[in-house]
Amino acid sequence: MVVLLRQFLASLLVLLLGANIGPGDAEALVVNLGNRSLVPLLLERLNEPVVLPKGDNRNVFFNVPAKYLDSRIRGLTLLRPPYGMLGSASFVGPTQLDNATVEVPDVAVPDLGPALELSREEDFSLFFPRHRVMARHLVDILLSLPTYEKFLCVSAVIRDKVNPYLYAYAMSVAILNRNDTIKTLPNSACLFPQLYFQGSILAGCWTEAHLFAPEDREPIEISRNWTATDLEPEHRVAYFREDIGINLAHWIWHVHNPHSGPPSAVNKDRRGELFYYFHQQIIARYNFERLSTELSRVKRLLNWREPIPEAYFPKLNNGLASRVWPPRQADARLQDVRRSDAVIDILDLERWRDRIMEAIHTGRAYTSTRETVQLDNDQGIDILGNILESSDLSINSRLYGDLHNAGHVVIAYAHDPDFRHLEKEGVMGNSRTALRDPVFFRWHAFVQNVFDEHKSMLPPYTEEELSFSGVHVRRVEVQSVGQEPNELHTFWQKSDYNIERGLDFSSGPVLVRVTHLQHVPFFYRIQVHNTGNRARNGMVRIFLAPKIDERRLPFSFSEQREFFIELDKFPIKLEPGLRTIIRWSNESTVTVDPKHTFLNVDKLPPGRPDQRTDKCNCGWPQHMLIPRGHAEGKHSTLFVMISDYDKERVEQKVEPDACWKGYSYCGLLGHRYPDKRPLGFPLDRLPRDEVSGINDNIETFLTPNMKIADVVLRHNDRTAPPEPLPVR
Amino acid sequence: MVVLLRQFLASLLVLLLGANIGPGDAEALVVNLGNRSLVPLLLERLNEPVVLPKGDNRNVFFNVPAKYLDSRIRGLTLLRPPYGMLGSASFVGPTQLDNATVEVPDVAVPDLGPALELSREEDFSLFFPRHRVMARHLVDILLSLPTYEKFLCVSAVIRDKVNPYLYAYAMSVAILNRNDTIKTLPNSACLFPQLYFQGSILAGCWTEAHLFAPEDREPIEISRNWTATDLEPEHRVAYFREDIGINLAHWIWHVHNPHSGPPSAVNKDRRGELFYYFHQQIIARYNFERLSTELSRVKRLLNWREPIPEAYFPKLNNGLASRVWPPRQADARLQDVRRSDAVIDILDLERWRDRIMEAIHTGRAYTSTRETVQLDNDQGIDILGNILESSDLSINSRLYGDLHNAGHVVIAYAHDPDFRHLEKEGVMGNSRTALRDPVFFRWHAFVQNVFDEHKSMLPPYTEEELSFSGVHVRRVEVQSVGQEPNELHTFWQKSDYNIERGLDFSSGPVLVRVTHLQHVPFFYRIQVHNTGNRARNGMVRIFLAPKIDERRLPFSFSEQREFFIELDKFPIKLEPGLRTIIRWSNESTVTVDPKHTFLNVDKLPPGRPDQRTDKCNCGWPQHMLIPRGHAEGKHSTLFVMISDYDKERVEQKVEPDACWKGYSYCGLLGHRYPDKRPLGFPLDRLPRDEVSGINDNIETFLTPNMKIADVVLRHNDRTAPPEPLPVR
Repeated sequence: MVVLLRQFLASLLVLLLGANIGPGDAEALVVNLGNRSLVPLLLERLNEPVVLPKGDNRNVFFNVPAKYLDSRIRGLTLLRPPYGMLGSASFVGPTQLDNATVEVPDVAVPDLGPALELSREEDFSLFFPRHRVMARHLVDILLSLPTYEKFLCVSAVIRDKVNPYLYAYAMSVAILNRNDTIKTLPNSACLFPQLYFQGSILAGCWTEAHLFAPEDREPIEISRNWTATDLEPEHRVAYFREDIGINLAHWIWHVHNPHSGPPSAVNKDRRGELFYYFHQQIIARYNFERLSTELSRVKRLLNWREPIPEAYFPKLNNGLASRVWPPRQADARLQDVRRSDAVIDILDLERWRDRIMEAIHTGRAYTSTRETVQLDNDQGIDILGNILESSDLSINSRLYGDLHNAGHVVIAYAHDPDFRHLEKEGVMGNSRTALRDPVFFRWHAFVQNVFDEHKSMLPPYTEEELSFSGVHVRRVEVQSVGQEPNELHTFWQKSDYNIERGLDFSSGPVLVRVTHLQHVPFFYRIQVHNTGNRARNGMVRIFLAPKIDERRLPFSFSEQREFFIELDKFPIKLEPGLRTIIRWSNESTVTVDPKHTFLNVDKLPPGRPDQRTDKCNCGWPQHMLIPRGHAEGKHSTLFVMISDYDKERVEQKVEPDACWKGYSYCGLLGHRYPDKRPLGFPLDRLPRDEVSGINDNIETFLTPNMKIADVVLRHNDRTAPPEPLPVR
Repeated sequence: MVVLLRQFLASLLVLLLGANIGPGDAEALVVNLGNRSLVPLLLERLNEPVVLPKGDNRNVFFNVPAKYLDSRIRGLTLLRPPYGMLGSASFVGPTQLDNATVEVPDVAVPDLGPALELSREEDFSLFFPRHRVMARHLVDILLSLPTYEKFLCVSAVIRDKVNPYLYAYAMSVAILNRNDTIKTLPNSACLFPQLYFQGSILAGCWTEAHLFAPEDREPIEISRNWTATDLEPEHRVAYFREDIGINLAHWIWHVHNPHSGPPSAVNKDRRGELFYYFHQQIIARYNFERLSTELSRVKRLLNWREPIPEAYFPKLNNGLASRVWPPRQADARLQDVRRSDAVIDILDLERWRDRIMEAIHTGRAYTSTRETVQLDNDQGIDILGNILESSDLSINSRLYGDLHNAGHVVIAYAHDPDFRHLEKEGVMGNSRTALRDPVFFRWHAFVQNVFDEHKSMLPPYTEEELSFSGVHVRRVEVQSVGQEPNELHTFWQKSDYNIERGLDFSSGPVLVRVTHLQHVPFFYRIQVHNTGNRARNGMVRIFLAPKIDERRLPFSFSEQREFFIELDKFPIKLEPGLRTIIRWSNESTVTVDPKHTFLNVDKLPPGRPDQRTDKCNCGWPQHMLIPRGHAEGKHSTLFVMISDYDKERVEQKVEPDACWKGYSYCGLLGHRYPDKRPLGFPLDRLPRDEVSGINDNIETFLTPNMKIADVVLRHNDRTAPPEPLPVR
């Protein structure tokens, strides 16, 4: 068994490093510095010195020149394989290692300046203005390195000098924005398990890693209800808030679309609008889950002077991460923040909110150079998104402030606003962890409300704008594998994360088993009639919303509109005549491939041309595409529209390796957003007058190129065992 | 260096195990089961299986029969030295070990019953009634084992089945109450560093242990201000609340004097009174520190319906301990507790308090069999202590409840009273950690207040009761080494704790360096005149109190009385004539030897007759004998009384190895308390009428056998390096 495993690992190494070494081969293999798999290795086990062997089997050794090493590290008796002399505890195990050496040459190290101001023990978060300066400086350095080899070497040399979280963030932005990388981020849950898993599993992980041989180790299982019980009503949707895939998606989105940094990294096409849309969809999806679990829609956090009833105890504490995650106890009050990394009054927030609202209601905003910008048009949402978030692209951050970011900070510091207790920020202060907390959704429901005010200022889409003449959608249906038509089925599933890359001083796989929502795979069957005599290009837009509100009464369309979640969006060629479109749920352009949610990047199969989209890891997790629903069936409206793609297509040269998978919420990395329509079209604006009455339902809204179906979301409270995903 | 160390370790092993094995000797040495050093080894690294080698150099192997082992542990390839096949990570290091094997025979394992109800991940605390049942059952078993060998073997066999904290507690009570043990507890800070040190040091500890050879390791230093800053006024006395020695003393006191358990362990002479006096002294000492740092005396926690302004963030979180220590945020409100381990209404507390107060003010209490017990006499305080704490000795726990314990629980659960957030108790719920929290002192100031009501019901001591005819104290003075007379000097000192015994899966020393208060050694010079013509036996009673209150006005005696802290109490023979008594500060019967505060039990030198008191580890830490004082000098009153020991001596056969050191707060283990006077005599009661005026000072109180001196407590804000205590 061990031998088989080692042979398999050796073969994998061959694949990864492009060289042929066999098991037991003790000769060090010098790796080509241009190898694209090397940079992600630098992000693992960030508390260990860079010169400790990397990779799952500790196969790769970065031979960094001694002069860049801390004097104590330099003094270690023997750093090269077989590492037998390290410490009293030779964690690399009793066997000889296969080994490959990266000979890092002597390079010119740029001035790290502000990036050195954050100690290695502190936390890093782009929510803090001081941290933005550090991150921008470091990202600038990493983006300016002319070759991949220089990027690799400088990254290796500076790794142990910089705060690990700052380093991981800057490296991630560099990986996405350089042209010579794989443009795929390592799985943050594997590298930083302390940000995603119950802190108390550490003891078990150590026991497995230190006591048992790799083939004898058992997964450490985390209960589905590990942060609270159903005595706390908010806990009913903890499976959504604490879902690892969702938290990864949120973090990756923010690295794809940073609000601060070098202009080349920040100035993405429609980034302000993407900020609006991604978070609008998160709230819509959260509300769908809430209605599925007999909770009312999330209440906006509007009054910042009254106690916040929702408590949250993150339980992520983990001594290895030098990090205590403070809870927020029930009825905490927000307070003015006076800390070295943030100075924010609640009055600031109120002032910014009121100024932004005034800009919305007057239809115009003012730049820092006193020019007037119109907001009441298709571009308004993008400008407003950057103002409100705010990003470096805000037209006037002095006037409109930093509302959304500063709100995160004020909430994250409610327990220790003046640092008297030396407490770090709560989970709301970090994009990797913020969604865990119920208050995230209350805050973003407020933010969404501001955007909604803007959207309500825009003229409703006319019937003409909505129609696609000659194209009629006759029938839409969903079909889950082995189930009745128009039913979607959800259940619980266990999955394993291998966290060895985040477990310092261990070697070999250590699995953590979590339980998450899952759904039975399904496909859409869309019958469409091109009544004309020429082929047309259509864009299929699929959404889903609950039909019944928290009072158990049917939604009017104007209310239901805000609850629609996007399921898919794809172009289609329509020859004249009838056609039935079949589209599988896992083809969705909203979601990423499950491999990105559960595996680390270098576990992905080597890229073949037909697998190119495999490397795209920004997007909603596939297993959370469908809301939970209810045992008795949650009645929902499936909405399908086919619009005129020829009017919507964006003319641009798209690289063959562009990340179409998951682009809908994330944008198309390195390209313009490939759909001219406002995000959320056609449901982003108030409906036209004829459809906006309190008793109007969605039927009234439909034009012939749209169709709805009643779909029942049925939840089965069973738990499926882990699927045999290729762990290696 | 390594060789020297190993030779030294080998010699130590010879001393400890009484056998001769040399370095490099790979023959397993079978250890005599009667060896008294073996039991404490079972308490180390409690997350590791029992069959992993124990001791500082992993020298001792408990060979437990396979049938008692968990099947996965049993399956480990090779458990005997050199342990090379354990896991992938051979934490026992690359060298061959010196080894000694304890061959545990097949023994009859008693029914563990309720002791198995607590999972290994939960916390154990005697504050919870359910846990008391478990502890009593397990202690009963351990005390009933007829021989040391049986005790050792059963302890080894059940070790991995029982919750580690419950196991450690029950073993500790058994060690103290059996007649065949060393009656000394291993140092809890070394075994459970997670309860005493900042949780975030773990990363550094692992780095030292895994990366560096033992001789190259450096101490992990914890800042003196690691839980808060001086923005929080309560933090000024954190050095007292969080002092490791004080927390050890509090825990050890409670193990010496458990409130619940088998009668032989609980029913100690004057235990109720000892509860009163030890905590009275803690409050007096805390108030002395508060006045030294410009804080007012601690405010009693009287109203349990209003928010508690003091926040506390313990920062002990440590993933290895599977334990998150919730903070209490500012303005938390106490709530009725409804959890599986405790059901307490605040109304219960109020009812118990009022009934106890009524008993005090009527001078009598009622037993559960409806008999009347007088409280207004010397025995009242003992009865009341057991009622109020409460202990198993309470005469009527149905009527008077569980006031002090239940208060701890209600406060400890303020953040999650109904377990909806799955949160464990705060530090107030555990005797090892409770003193860290400012609210401990507010709660105990209330408890003290109840006791004070009782003491105020008792007749003041008459001049005759206070006097010692023919014995005059002429002059008292303190002299610190190298300083002016009547000055006491405090400063900061660093000390190292070797926590390897609490660090699973590591080997070799890992030092944590803390900074604590220290004072310059001093002695008392007491000039006493026996004017009679026969030798007299006197008892010297030495106390110290601040002279100036928080308003910067002199205390009246009736107020100052409550602030006196005991410094020493010892008998002395007085031949006729003048005599000058010299007594050193480290001879105090209030304190333990610093070795017990900073070292682990088996690091103590082997017992020679003149070192017998070395093994006594219940008592106040020597380094905290003297309050901090102030840079400008804190004016204090040294009070010395010599009373008539012939009237006070308790007739009993005292074992030659009795723990006189530190008995004053702890009692004399296995014996009656060796002083007939009420604890705190002569300052425990209201002064007689002539001395109780608002302007009366202590001078008026003095009889000829008493003397006072003005002493200045001077604090120097320097930090001394660690003293060369013998680490090995």
